[in-house]
Amino acid sequence: MSIREIPLRCVKVADDFWSPRQAMIADVVIPYMEKILRDEVPGAEKSHAVGNFRMAAGEEPGEFYGMVFQDSDVAKWLEAAAYSLALKPDDALSARVDDMVALIGRCQQDDGYLNTYFTVREPENRWKNLLECHELYCAGHLMEAAAALYEAVGKDALLGICTRLADHICDRFEKEEGIPGHQEIEIGLLRLYHVTHNARYRDMALRFLNLRGRDPDWFRKHTPSHPGIRYGGYDIDPEDNRYNQSDVPVRAQTVARGHAVRQLYMLTAMADAAAETGDREMLEACRRLFEDITQRQMYVTGAVGASACGESFTVDYDLPSDRGYGETCASVAMAFFAHQMLKSDADGRYADLIELEFYNAALAGMQLDGKRFFYVNPLAVDTRVSGRVPGYLHIQPQRPPWHTCACCPPNLARLIASLGKYLWSEDLDTVYSHLLIGSEAATRHGRIRLESGLPWTGEAKYTVLTGGQFCLAIHVPSYAEDISLQINGQAVTCETAKGYCFLHRTWLAGDTVELRFAMPIRRIYADARVRDCAGRVALARGPMIYCFEEVDQPQPLFSLSLPRSAPIAVAPAPSGLPGNLVCLRMEGVSELPADRLYCQHPPEEAPCTLTAIPYFAWANRARGDMLVWIREDADSVR
Amino acid sequence: MSIREIPLRCVKVADDFWSPRQAMIADVVIPYMEKILRDEVPGAEKSHAVGNFRMAAGEEPGEFYGMVFQDSDVAKWLEAAAYSLALKPDDALSARVDDMVALIGRCQQDDGYLNTYFTVREPENRWKNLLECHELYCAGHLMEAAAALYEAVGKDALLGICTRLADHICDRFEKEEGIPGHQEIEIGLLRLYHVTHNARYRDMALRFLNLRGRDPDWFRKHTPSHPGIRYGGYDIDPEDNRYNQSDVPVRAQTVARGHAVRQLYMLTAMADAAAETGDREMLEACRRLFEDITQRQMYVTGAVGASACGESFTVDYDLPSDRGYGETCASVAMAFFAHQMLKSDADGRYADLIELEFYNAALAGMQLDGKRFFYVNPLAVDTRVSGRVPGYLHIQPQRPPWHTCACCPPNLARLIASLGKYLWSEDLDTVYSHLLIGSEAATRHGRIRLESGLPWTGEAKYTVLTGGQFCLAIHVPSYAEDISLQINGQAVTCETAKGYCFLHRTWLAGDTVELRFAMPIRRIYADARVRDCAGRVALARGPMIYCFEEVDQPQPLFSLSLPRSAPIAVAPAPSGLPGNLVCLRMEGVSELPADRLYCQHPPEEAPCTLTAIPYFAWANRARGDMLVWIREDADSVR
Repeated sequence: MSIREIPLRCVKVADDFWSPRQAMIADVVIPYMEKILRDEVPGAEKSHAVGNFRMAAGEEPGEFYGMVFQDSDVAKWLEAAAYSLALKPDDALSARVDDMVALIGRCQQDDGYLNTYFTVREPENRWKNLLECHELYCAGHLMEAAAALYEAVGKDALLGICTRLADHICDRFEKEEGIPGHQEIEIGLLRLYHVTHNARYRDMALRFLNLRGRDPDWFRKHTPSHPGIRYGGYDIDPEDNRYNQSDVPVRAQTVARGHAVRQLYMLTAMADAAAETGDREMLEACRRLFEDITQRQMYVTGAVGASACGESFTVDYDLPSDRGYGETCASVAMAFFAHQMLKSDADGRYADLIELEFYNAALAGMQLDGKRFFYVNPLAVDTRVSGRVPGYLHIQPQRPPWHTCACCPPNLARLIASLGKYLWSEDLDTVYSHLLIGSEAATRHGRIRLESGLPWTGEAKYTVLTGGQFCLAIHVPSYAEDISLQINGQAVTCETAKGYCFLHRTWLAGDTVELRFAMPIRRIYADARVRDCAGRVALARGPMIYCFEEVDQPQPLFSLSLPRSAPIAVAPAPSGLPGNLVCLRMEGVSELPADRLYCQHPPEEAPCTLTAIPYFAWANRARGDMLVWIREDADSVR
Repeated sequence: MSIREIPLRCVKVADDFWSPRQAMIADVVIPYMEKILRDEVPGAEKSHAVGNFRMAAGEEPGEFYGMVFQDSDVAKWLEAAAYSLALKPDDALSARVDDMVALIGRCQQDDGYLNTYFTVREPENRWKNLLECHELYCAGHLMEAAAALYEAVGKDALLGICTRLADHICDRFEKEEGIPGHQEIEIGLLRLYHVTHNARYRDMALRFLNLRGRDPDWFRKHTPSHPGIRYGGYDIDPEDNRYNQSDVPVRAQTVARGHAVRQLYMLTAMADAAAETGDREMLEACRRLFEDITQRQMYVTGAVGASACGESFTVDYDLPSDRGYGETCASVAMAFFAHQMLKSDADGRYADLIELEFYNAALAGMQLDGKRFFYVNPLAVDTRVSGRVPGYLHIQPQRPPWHTCACCPPNLARLIASLGKYLWSEDLDTVYSHLLIGSEAATRHGRIRLESGLPWTGEAKYTVLTGGQFCLAIHVPSYAEDISLQINGQAVTCETAKGYCFLHRTWLAGDTVELRFAMPIRRIYADARVRDCAGRVALARGPMIYCFEEVDQPQPLFSLSLPRSAPIAVAPAPSGLPGNLVCLRMEGVSELPADRLYCQHPPEEAPCTLTAIPYFAWANRARGDMLVWIREDADSVR
């Protein structure tokens, strides 16, 4: 048996940092998004996603509006709502979810087909253009929502709709060749399989993966020239087989390239499939790409996708801070991918990565009040150029209220609402604790409660609630130092491997394990091949990456430097930010503007106090410049 | 009387650095370009510029080919050939020039109109789309060529053609409103006026300048929607009035914005017009924009235009090294502009700028052998991304043989061939020597010879060949230190102002002035507001800016740093470069690649020897990375 995720309904998150955020998802984000989907938020980008379903059900006249994949916004909202209902019962929301599912059901065609764009606008063009039309992508998201509603709160109406949809897809694509233009159906089919145990869905997912890249020209050969219509206005180059990773068979891929979310959704499905089938070659490809991404193409915050053009990976070590893309969805997908990898390998690298994404690249996508979202997550913002100068037009210094392409907000909502899924797993004799986030898990081996001081202090306490003989495998974050473990107050040493401490024991109810470690402030340096980070340092403490915002320092922000030897201290949050944020303070150096553009003396320097705040909390005060990588001056004798 | 340029025919360049380059223009570049224009170079981009004239003359069948402004390539070649004939008589070239002019004459319409695109392809659309069609731009370049042929070698055939063309333009635009979409006609008309003294041409140029920006919506109102044709494939947004500086009246402009060459051609004409008419308001606008460009928007090499998008200026202090544009034509135009400013102000800033452009940003546009040219001149090249990753697609690490849009090579050829124009000027009682470049000038006050050790040594010697009573005003470059002046071997002191030494005297034939100064290697720092240069230094010696090429240093190039205290010595040229280049050598630090993308210790460092070469000579050896601004480590105690 491979390692098994502890289902969401068996994990209750109770954490000082995350529980309020999950409550915010339930109380603010889910209702807000529903309003957006129903076009009830004045001033926000029009969505019309619910309206499209109403039209497809024949219950409303009008025109389809939005991206060809607009349906997926509703699906992701439903998935997030499912997790939210599991977190906090809400009869009114539950009824609205049921209504939404019923509406979706009324859009389903007799043969099981379900997609509002093609039902409303081009019924004659169903399944004709897999490259651009996202029918399989939308279906995959509906299947994820169906699995979530069933697993989290036992609702099975959408599951029924989606098995009919999945059967329709299998009927069509089991024999006919088809490659999804945007990977996602593979994830959806596998989740449907995990719920229904119908091997047909697993095999269909594998077939989609296996066909990909066999013929690198497949999309060129199978994409119709647009017959006067534009398939929802989407326009993708069929020659660019790297963009959607159809250039090389999936098991032979060696580097992450092309559209980041497509790449990562594919890897998520591949990792799930490899754990399910024991396909070593598939697993090796996943490991190779995990290594390539995290060791050559990932920002220090966990963000990926260096280029706005194609929302894509570019080349190794190309990680520009000020104009990278770092799509929120890609960070969410990094967590998905690493989570699936944990099914094959209890390796702390995956747990560390999930933690990095949750606290940094993903969480930064949302304003502290849950009302605004970033699509793009840069590591440096110069307000003089961002949004104004070509090359920086995609960089926004503040979160907008909604997006024309609204994939990111519901993706982040479903991630945070389903946090419980990421914390624990188990196999025949072991309970794994991957993340030190307060929670209670009902495992096959017994119930365990975890209390944790993260992200601010390195203290965690496990209490066994119902005992048994099993191994408790605790992942200690890679940044922990001076680690101590106590069982029932007695110091213990234990076997460790790949970042996990393995505690074998016959556990009795009331037994405790206390983990303590130091989390010194860290200076992080990038490989010398990362051009953009040469001579620079990023600051971290525990799972948090820090950044410098204009409002807290002297100007110009990009002239600031930090002596290598300068002490850095924990400090209270600056005004305008929640008081419980642990911030950093240090003495640095600012440079003064000169009266000439170029001169023969270095810019005049002035000592100054610098304040760094957790990266996820940036852009919650006045509009201004921001940077993560600050220049480090090696001079220790100033 | 304002300060008057000494005409080209009165100046003979005899300089160790420039004379061989001028000879190369005559011997290699002019014949090569002529072959290109005649499509006789296998493998190079097709030009068809001469073919277009043959078709317009009705002497060849076929289709117009190339940009709508393809004619200007022939005009700039003729202008360069004119200067080349002045440098070095060449009967064969002279005859071919005459043939080319005759061909052009046979294209002229009965009413004086002359433009091959509209004659061949859309005679019905003449003058209908000033925004995109460049008819006035091409006419301006023909007028410049006509003035050059007349002034340099006394040929007047093209002058006749161009006065008919200019009369045609005046007939049309003296009353009708018209704004040139790409400034250039203003320069051409003023040059025609300087040669013919026909005030109509001057007034027409002033009218074009005065109309610009009065109605910011002029182009939106006066650009026809494209009636099925594309006016040569050119497509400019009529709403973008900043792009061609039609947003604000010329005298009210305060910052350089939009297309750099358009801006600078306009300023060149404005400066000429201001000197001619004594228009103080116009002159103040020129001074303001010169200051804005050189003090907020110019690369240290003299390159301008920070964005490839629109080949444009962007915002103050936005000077990215690795993806700037720095079009060769814009650097050439910077020299034009500063040269015209010298007519109103003997201010060393203008002379220094001309020198900077000649030795650096402009000269870098040409390969050492004169056979290949850069259109774009970055200050840093990372070959892993240049030409491959979006945002860097315009950056080429090596000069291509020709360009689809071939404005730059002939522009550079005419600049270098006409170098003599930039060296001297005069007014009623003064002879000005602006640049320390070996030459002999016949002024109204007497003949003077200048011998100079620049760019490699700070020694210059003036010998009066025919005497008289006048002031010799010598510009001493701003980088000169420990300056000494001797007249006939006797040390003298003198009045100085704005970078010029004024030597009043009754000069006798045989009198000498010897100028000596030190040219220490300089470390140049940018204003703290230039984000891209924070913590970096550029090296210079005399007029030369230096750069580091991959082939001469350890890798990775972008990890290199230079301690602030490291001595820098003059060194011989590395192999593969001409032996007479003065290069720089110093001990620096390289960083070694790590085994992890991010870690908690700074990259391991290794001492290394660094070699910097003059920037103009980069990309003449193996393809590789290059950088101008190297990281400086302030640590003086390593």
